[in-house]
Amino acid sequence: MNTSALPQLQPLIQPNWLLSTASSRRLYHDYAASLPIIDYHNHLAPDQLAQNYHFDNLTEAWLAGDHYKWRAMRALGIPEEKITGAANDYDKFLAYAQTLPYSLRNPLFHWSQLELKRYFDVDEYLNKTTAPAVYEQATAHLQSEQGGTWGLLQGQNVRVVCTTDDPLDELNFHQSLANNLKAPLKMLPTWRPDKCLLIQASKWRDYIDRLASVSDRSIQDYQGLLSALELRMDYFAARGCSLSDHGLEFIPPANYRPEEADRAFRKAMANDLISQEAADTFLFTLLVDLGKAYADRKWVMQLHLGALRNNNRRAERELGPDTGYDSIGDFPQAVGLSRLLDQLNDTDQLPKTILYNLNPADNEVFATMIGNFAGGGQRGKIQWGSGWWFLDQWDGMQRQIDTLSNMGLLSCFVGMLTDSRSFLSYPRHEYFRRLLCELFGRDMESGKLPQDFEWVGGIVQDICYHNAAAYFDF
Amino acid sequence: MNTSALPQLQPLIQPNWLLSTASSRRLYHDYAASLPIIDYHNHLAPDQLAQNYHFDNLTEAWLAGDHYKWRAMRALGIPEEKITGAANDYDKFLAYAQTLPYSLRNPLFHWSQLELKRYFDVDEYLNKTTAPAVYEQATAHLQSEQGGTWGLLQGQNVRVVCTTDDPLDELNFHQSLANNLKAPLKMLPTWRPDKCLLIQASKWRDYIDRLASVSDRSIQDYQGLLSALELRMDYFAARGCSLSDHGLEFIPPANYRPEEADRAFRKAMANDLISQEAADTFLFTLLVDLGKAYADRKWVMQLHLGALRNNNRRAERELGPDTGYDSIGDFPQAVGLSRLLDQLNDTDQLPKTILYNLNPADNEVFATMIGNFAGGGQRGKIQWGSGWWFLDQWDGMQRQIDTLSNMGLLSCFVGMLTDSRSFLSYPRHEYFRRLLCELFGRDMESGKLPQDFEWVGGIVQDICYHNAAAYFDF
Amino acid sequence: MNTSALPQLQPLIQPNWLLSTASSRRLYHDYAASLPIIDYHNHLAPDQLAQNYHFDNLTEAWLAGDHYKWRAMRALGIPEEKITGAANDYDKFLAYAQTLPYSLRNPLFHWSQLELKRYFDVDEYLNKTTAPAVYEQATAHLQSEQGGTWGLLQGQNVRVVCTTDDPLDELNFHQSLANNLKAPLKMLPTWRPDKCLLIQASKWRDYIDRLASVSDRSIQDYQGLLSALELRMDYFAARGCSLSDHGLEFIPPANYRPEEADRAFRKAMANDLISQEAADTFLFTLLVDLGKAYADRKWVMQLHLGALRNNNRRAERELGPDTGYDSIGDFPQAVGLSRLLDQLNDTDQLPKTILYNLNPADNEVFATMIGNFAGGGQRGKIQWGSGWWFLDQWDGMQRQIDTLSNMGLLSCFVGMLTDSRSFLSYPRHEYFRRLLCELFGRDMESGKLPQDFEWVGGIVQDICYHNAAAYFDF
Repeated sequence: MNTSALPQLQPLIQPNWLLSTASSRRLYHDYAASLPIIDYHNHLAPDQLAQNYHFDNLTEAWLAGDHYKWRAMRALGIPEEKITGAANDYDKFLAYAQTLPYSLRNPLFHWSQLELKRYFDVDEYLNKTTAPAVYEQATAHLQSEQGGTWGLLQGQNVRVVCTTDDPLDELNFHQSLANNLKAPLKMLPTWRPDKCLLIQASKWRDYIDRLASVSDRSIQDYQGLLSALELRMDYFAARGCSLSDHGLEFIPPANYRPEEADRAFRKAMANDLISQEAADTFLFTLLVDLGKAYADRKWVMQLHLGALRNNNRRAERELGPDTGYDSIGDFPQAVGLSRLLDQLNDTDQLPKTILYNLNPADNEVFATMIGNFAGGGQRGKIQWGSGWWFLDQWDGMQRQIDTLSNMGLLSCFVGMLTDSRSFLSYPRHEYFRRLLCELFGRDMESGKLPQDFEWVGGIVQDICYHNAAAYFDF
Repeated sequence: MNTSALPQLQPLIQPNWLLSTASSRRLYHDYAASLPIIDYHNHLAPDQLAQNYHFDNLTEAWLAGDHYKWRAMRALGIPEEKITGAANDYDKFLAYAQTLPYSLRNPLFHWSQLELKRYFDVDEYLNKTTAPAVYEQATAHLQSEQGGTWGLLQGQNVRVVCTTDDPLDELNFHQSLANNLKAPLKMLPTWRPDKCLLIQASKWRDYIDRLASVSDRSIQDYQGLLSALELRMDYFAARGCSLSDHGLEFIPPANYRPEEADRAFRKAMANDLISQEAADTFLFTLLVDLGKAYADRKWVMQLHLGALRNNNRRAERELGPDTGYDSIGDFPQAVGLSRLLDQLNDTDQLPKTILYNLNPADNEVFATMIGNFAGGGQRGKIQWGSGWWFLDQWDGMQRQIDTLSNMGLLSCFVGMLTDSRSFLSYPRHEYFRRLLCELFGRDMESGKLPQDFEWVGGIVQDICYHNAAAYFDF
Repeated sequence: MNTSALPQLQPLIQPNWLLSTASSRRLYHDYAASLPIIDYHNHLAPDQLAQNYHFDNLTEAWLAGDHYKWRAMRALGIPEEKITGAANDYDKFLAYAQTLPYSLRNPLFHWSQLELKRYFDVDEYLNKTTAPAVYEQATAHLQSEQGGTWGLLQGQNVRVVCTTDDPLDELNFHQSLANNLKAPLKMLPTWRPDKCLLIQASKWRDYIDRLASVSDRSIQDYQGLLSALELRMDYFAARGCSLSDHGLEFIPPANYRPEEADRAFRKAMANDLISQEAADTFLFTLLVDLGKAYADRKWVMQLHLGALRNNNRRAERELGPDTGYDSIGDFPQAVGLSRLLDQLNDTDQLPKTILYNLNPADNEVFATMIGNFAGGGQRGKIQWGSGWWFLDQWDGMQRQIDTLSNMGLLSCFVGMLTDSRSFLSYPRHEYFRRLLCELFGRDMESGKLPQDFEWVGGIVQDICYHNAAAYFDF
């Protein structure tokens, strides 16, 4: 591949990038572009934000922890040493720079060029030839006054970020940022109690012991578990938490049975074997009781369903979990999910809820499920979350938006989130907004929608910002 | 949202609406537009048609019973009182008028504006401001001579409608319309025996008792059930019925076992508990025997598969069933469906059959399943039905048409049906025809199809009208 | 349908057919069109290629064995006599000529016209009227010097074909072609041991006996089976084989248990009944051991998953298997597939692997699964195969390419294969290349990709030829 001609090319990122019609452009520039960002779900490191951390270089900020990039490099045949291994930071960057030209049509190509442009004003296409200059320019910015995590987020107009946190976490960094008068934005915790739900997991008992210790009470039975969790919820709430999150393959179509959950709890604490049926009942029952606790606190419940994790045991032994070996599962989702929401709704204790599916084959199941529990005078009470993980690319987000349009009210959608560990992922909100304006704009020009910019633009603004602001009310 | 500019806007519904190419327009206007409508599956109320009923107002005609609109209103946060509750008709209409501007990109927006245009010649965008005039204009028409159910259907060029009827129904309204010399169209019944198939349902025994009473014979065993059903089929046939219909989550992959079905029947009649396996065998066996009876009578068998119903028990308690709380399921469909069709085909007793799936993830399963049982010299014997329920919008219908195109013969397709309870849904045939002409027209202009209007237009006409006319031969 | 106007029409196949942008056209003509073809998976008859067979007429070359065409004819209501029955070859051709005008939007329409153009220089649209001349012209070419199987493939620039072969096959035709100095291309065998994997199948024991006979050793236990298979693998390898292939509904999520596999083997050989669980363990274990043997030999493993076969027992009785009565299944695929690949990968014995899914609802599962096992410094080690069977049409291939783009590295894709029994299917590579260039070209013109033809064109060339050449290294 001869890339010598690249420097003469038009830069990828243009003001009207991805906006093919005049209406799309007007919607984007006049309505969407300048709105602030509420990133209500991500995996940022609280310490790095609390301390206005400055990354050493572009590799640390951009490649460390990014399994999207790792997967692409592995697919291209880059040796693991240069991905997660012992190679130095610059060589790792060079390996990615070598990979990017082969990522055409993958979201990494768009994301990477957009991020280089927005954070570091880089116009060049990243490749072996341009790598040295890009690395230098970006690293210099990261080391500058404005290059800390505060400046990175401020530069992208971010107002609120919600991290993802374990119930055992003390949330000290959230506190310290909240107490810092100079802090340019809010960082709020999200309650993610996955580890106490999977009663068959090898580390479950250990986790319960730690929960007992942190909540300073012994946990002898299912009610004790609930009480300890509620204590921690109050602790979280006092530190600004108003969202929960759960990651599961699927909701088992079980029943709400506190007595059986209690029995399973006692057996598991006694190291007895738990049947699949008992584990499912425990999980289902605990989800219901947690949901009621969320409703009491007016928290939002998030459910991320459908990932098939840790497929590669050898890599897990060598690199640990969450290193890029997860993929999309094909579990039955509808019946169990319906039962969970119905159980909570039956006593009018269903909290505001956001459902995320990982397999787009389930899009229509999720898009129509939310309609079953709408109502109670709450606008957009049950949401179908934006394209998640493998799906937060142009096509995946478009399918989610189109399906939501067809089967629900797009106008009530709380919109985009990054779900990212990286402080450099914030232009994904721009990417989403361009897509949204492109879709509405195209429909205006083809006669599918009225040519009324106030009307359509108002809905665009709601989806980009105002719906989330009203829904979460941070 | 400022909607003050709306009155100056171009009306949504234009002659070339949704037709983006010259070929699409020519196909639509010269070939498709003027053909009459055979609506071979819907849920119209027979009494309202038999009696040329005049609706009191637009709310009764348009909102009562329309769960699509209810779901949208609930999602927006409209209180239930104004949806299905005690509010007066005008306030309910106003609540819908308030909702519609927030339904952009949902089929309701297109459907509603198209229906207002076609039935009441309303060009305005419906919203709070325009609501009073629209209500008045439409209600006046509904109260006029031409505003009864006959006029409503005649105005849309409807020739035949097939309602959906319980085997216990006496079909008196079908008879009275058939006997009415002034009746402007045919109304034919469809046999839908769902209630006798689900042997575990709480009201099943009660239903069998009523069947015995209506057919004036005692039902002691499985053969007795079949005989009673066949008697009723003859009764239906004598009143013009030539279609059956079934609504099921999925066809269980069971076996044809009349003896076991008989055993299950006797147990259920004795109020014994029926195992899931026995219930599946009963269902499968009865479907086979019904299928054979349809084949004997040259009826068409319809199977609507994949809905997940009654998800919200609280709403069901408060509002009853079928009030907008159903959604799309993700059941395995292929194996059971194949077995049912194979069982009937094995003895050459497979009737003409139309398969409808609710989950578009199953599109390709259904599109290729019909090809397994094609043949016997019958053109398009097994059909894959048009996008159903949540899927009868632009994208859903397009996916069905495109998938059928790729995996079968689109040219043999019997085309659109409303599946609606509303006399105001008939422009959905126009919507379908515009889509069909848009797709063929685009392909002609991009070189995918020959630029031969007689050829392509002939196929369009077949799909819009002639295929259904020949297939059903009403 | 009046087709009298057809002769005046523009022929369908134009130089820029299906290439809607200038960039698409430049990519196709300057980069893709002239590359040779490596058809690494098909079902050609080895004897017909070894002997440079000349078909009697167009029917024998084009309709015999083509169940795509048969299904279309059946759907249209053509009597079976003219499809697979006793009618003479010309009448069968006429029946297909009658069908083709009704196949608009089906891939058969494009394929048929493209094949007529590329092999026989026919520009006319095939129909009743043009049928006689087309038949005569094509048949004359088939009988000419260049009309044998060698000429047919040479004319399409085919360099290598890989057939699909049973382990019992002696591969004499592969040998004779390899030894023929005048042979214009390579024909390599593919190892497809389906028949020894399904231990519950009625003919399984018989197959094992034949395997014992061919490998000239008695097979008493599971290890004996493996040894016999390895002997045959070496036999295949010596004759140029470096690919294996498996066709299965799905990989059962079982475990690798050689002792249990041995127990099942002995029971089956003793004609005892095998439980489903034991059959699954046997299948899974044998797949693992085969996979290790492939890795040892540096073979590529192919898995074709998801077909639902032999749906129509009556047709099978009358016409035999593989006569057009298979369709798309909806089996769970992810967990079992993950376990198989993980088991092989765990000991670093995972061979290069290509996964093919038949249900496009599984696209994203497959597209992300391959990323779990990428690595080891091998470029594109695990591949997601091109749209297969019902999916190798424009839309199906586009969905595979788009999904692979979004979730993996399209640039590493080994590209198209025919999977066909017909020597006349080779323009499907052209069809694929046009699609690929259309997609890249459109993206270049809409600003999604850089306007750099060397860069993008290089990737196009890799996908069309160089990736396969490097991956298979025939």
